[in-house]
Amino acid sequence: MQDIRIELTQNPTHLPEDESTLGFGKRFSDHMFVMDYTVEKGWFDPRIVPYAPISLYPSTMCFHYGQTTFEGLKAYRTEKNEILLFRPQQNFKRLNISDDRLCIPKLDEEFCLEALKKLIQIDEKFVPHSKGTSLYIRPFIIATEPQLGANSSTQYKFIIITSPSGVYYSSGLNPVKIYVEDNYVRAVRGGMGMAKTGGNYAVSLKSQVNAHNNDYSQVLWLDGVERKYIEEVGAMNIFFVIGDEVVTPEINGSILDGITRKSMVELLKKEGKKVSERRISIQEVEDAYENGELKEVFGTGTAAVISPVGVLKYKDKVMTINDNKIGEISKHLYDTLTGIQRGEIEDKFGWTVKVY
Amino acid sequence: MQDIRIELTQNPTHLPEDESTLGFGKRFSDHMFVMDYTVEKGWFDPRIVPYAPISLYPSTMCFHYGQTTFEGLKAYRTEKNEILLFRPQQNFKRLNISDDRLCIPKLDEEFCLEALKKLIQIDEKFVPHSKGTSLYIRPFIIATEPQLGANSSTQYKFIIITSPSGVYYSSGLNPVKIYVEDNYVRAVRGGMGMAKTGGNYAVSLKSQVNAHNNDYSQVLWLDGVERKYIEEVGAMNIFFVIGDEVVTPEINGSILDGITRKSMVELLKKEGKKVSERRISIQEVEDAYENGELKEVFGTGTAAVISPVGVLKYKDKVMTINDNKIGEISKHLYDTLTGIQRGEIEDKFGWTVKVY
Repeated sequence: MQDIRIELTQNPTHLPEDESTLGFGKRFSDHMFVMDYTVEKGWFDPRIVPYAPISLYPSTMCFHYGQTTFEGLKAYRTEKNEILLFRPQQNFKRLNISDDRLCIPKLDEEFCLEALKKLIQIDEKFVPHSKGTSLYIRPFIIATEPQLGANSSTQYKFIIITSPSGVYYSSGLNPVKIYVEDNYVRAVRGGMGMAKTGGNYAVSLKSQVNAHNNDYSQVLWLDGVERKYIEEVGAMNIFFVIGDEVVTPEINGSILDGITRKSMVELLKKEGKKVSERRISIQEVEDAYENGELKEVFGTGTAAVISPVGVLKYKDKVMTINDNKIGEISKHLYDTLTGIQRGEIEDKFGWTVKVY
Repeated sequence: MQDIRIELTQNPTHLPEDESTLGFGKRFSDHMFVMDYTVEKGWFDPRIVPYAPISLYPSTMCFHYGQTTFEGLKAYRTEKNEILLFRPQQNFKRLNISDDRLCIPKLDEEFCLEALKKLIQIDEKFVPHSKGTSLYIRPFIIATEPQLGANSSTQYKFIIITSPSGVYYSSGLNPVKIYVEDNYVRAVRGGMGMAKTGGNYAVSLKSQVNAHNNDYSQVLWLDGVERKYIEEVGAMNIFFVIGDEVVTPEINGSILDGITRKSMVELLKKEGKKVSERRISIQEVEDAYENGELKEVFGTGTAAVISPVGVLKYKDKVMTINDNKIGEISKHLYDTLTGIQRGEIEDKFGWTVKVY
């Protein structure tokens, strides 16, 4: 394993006294991990250096051709003052899957995890203490060859930055309003919908702005071919409780293989609940609503963990779910997963990883 | 119209003596145009400054969420030593269309053209002289807000860089080999296929690498819904000469509204040729090939102008077009358009714009 060069900051900063002012993704810890790639050298010069701007020529490929990938995960401070990561191996595994789709050279997943632990050890004071807070971790890769031919880059930068963060949704666990997008499409079979790459977020922006303008939080995407089957919510995977079955769309190549999604499915299975990963149409959801069988709807993702859906709109039909209140299963899953993440509930799955 | 601040370089460089060494998109002129955007100020501080790296925090949104757009056009030096742009208004118009899809604030198209002219006047010596060379111009916009929330950015940079360039395809007007991609999809109705944005190029890379590994130049994309209808070639639009009809796929929202494509259609119409912008399936192309009616296939784009297709592969079928030689119509269109672009053929369309 390569040695990591370490250069500590000369200008240390601190968390604010009042952690409720943290917000999401706006402040950054003192250091970052950086590693470069060239065809000749492979990934080289892994280093932890002061968080600072990077200098790139305007011809740098990532500004033009979207060859970028990223991940998002969190570190949590437990009551015993330990620092836990949640299934970080899954994030580096998925980063390599995204990289494969985007023609970016693969990383050594084990080395990445060691580098991340080292980075958090150095910036330990930036892991906030209050309930609901965390250190948000953003590993990402950008194509850095400075030339304009529309090919795969021969040079890359892999960077990990960390951001002490408050709660993602300021409205907390209050149910959100979501509408089903029937005009724009996020991704299609054969595309890159399963990768965490900039283009999937860029394509979603216009719908998201429309949603906000109409007082909705986010949009629910349908499949790009038939415009019938439910995909995901852009920043989240989606679950429906229909009768006694918990349903989430199957991993089909066009939706993100969410780690919170996967954990919820495993959790529900372990508890003996009926949980299905399968195709589900918007028509089935509407029918279940009409029959009184649609008990709960919730999104899952690293940022929010669980986001209950209180209102779901499809064309002219506005469906109010569970009286616009958080449902029992949503609440239970949220409490269980965040309990495991913070070391308050025994981790029978071996999901958490100690930073020290 | 805003004043453009000008700061000239202290370290002027020059074109190489031997212009055949230029290549494409690897060298840059001494200056660039830059303008910034914030919600409060709108687009502000337009300036022409020395070409140099830009400094961005690792949290800058364009590294993560793909909110970027770009354009590509060329300036040509005529035999009379004038410098001509080809339909530059169309590029800034299309940039605004891309910007609208990507939630990027619009630009004043007229002002952009004036800024571009000023930039080329200052870097006039970088417009090369030899036949087939040009000054490639790359206007682009990147989201620059330094935060990780997956929203539309509140800050942007608009930059124009220019690159003295040789011929795009080193193989010149020799026919290229293209295969029809039947696994991956570039874009779908409702997506962002019509925008010049990084994600559309990122999604194409894997197919392009596969093509190169199999000794093909590029891939021809089919529609993402039925996988039957022809879309484009990633870096080019595509034309088929079937009998006496010249056919190119209609502008449908998922393909790029190419300016060379549009010019070819107008040119053919003016000459009284039968030219159709319509849906065309790969089956129709195969049938025409079998019947001996498929006379020519060619791609069009700013970089190559015309790229004749000599071999077209679909699944196991390899179609050799026009004995793998450039066709009459392809040759005629290439000569006419490049003649107009270089001021050697009278421009009856009013397409060219003088820089001075």
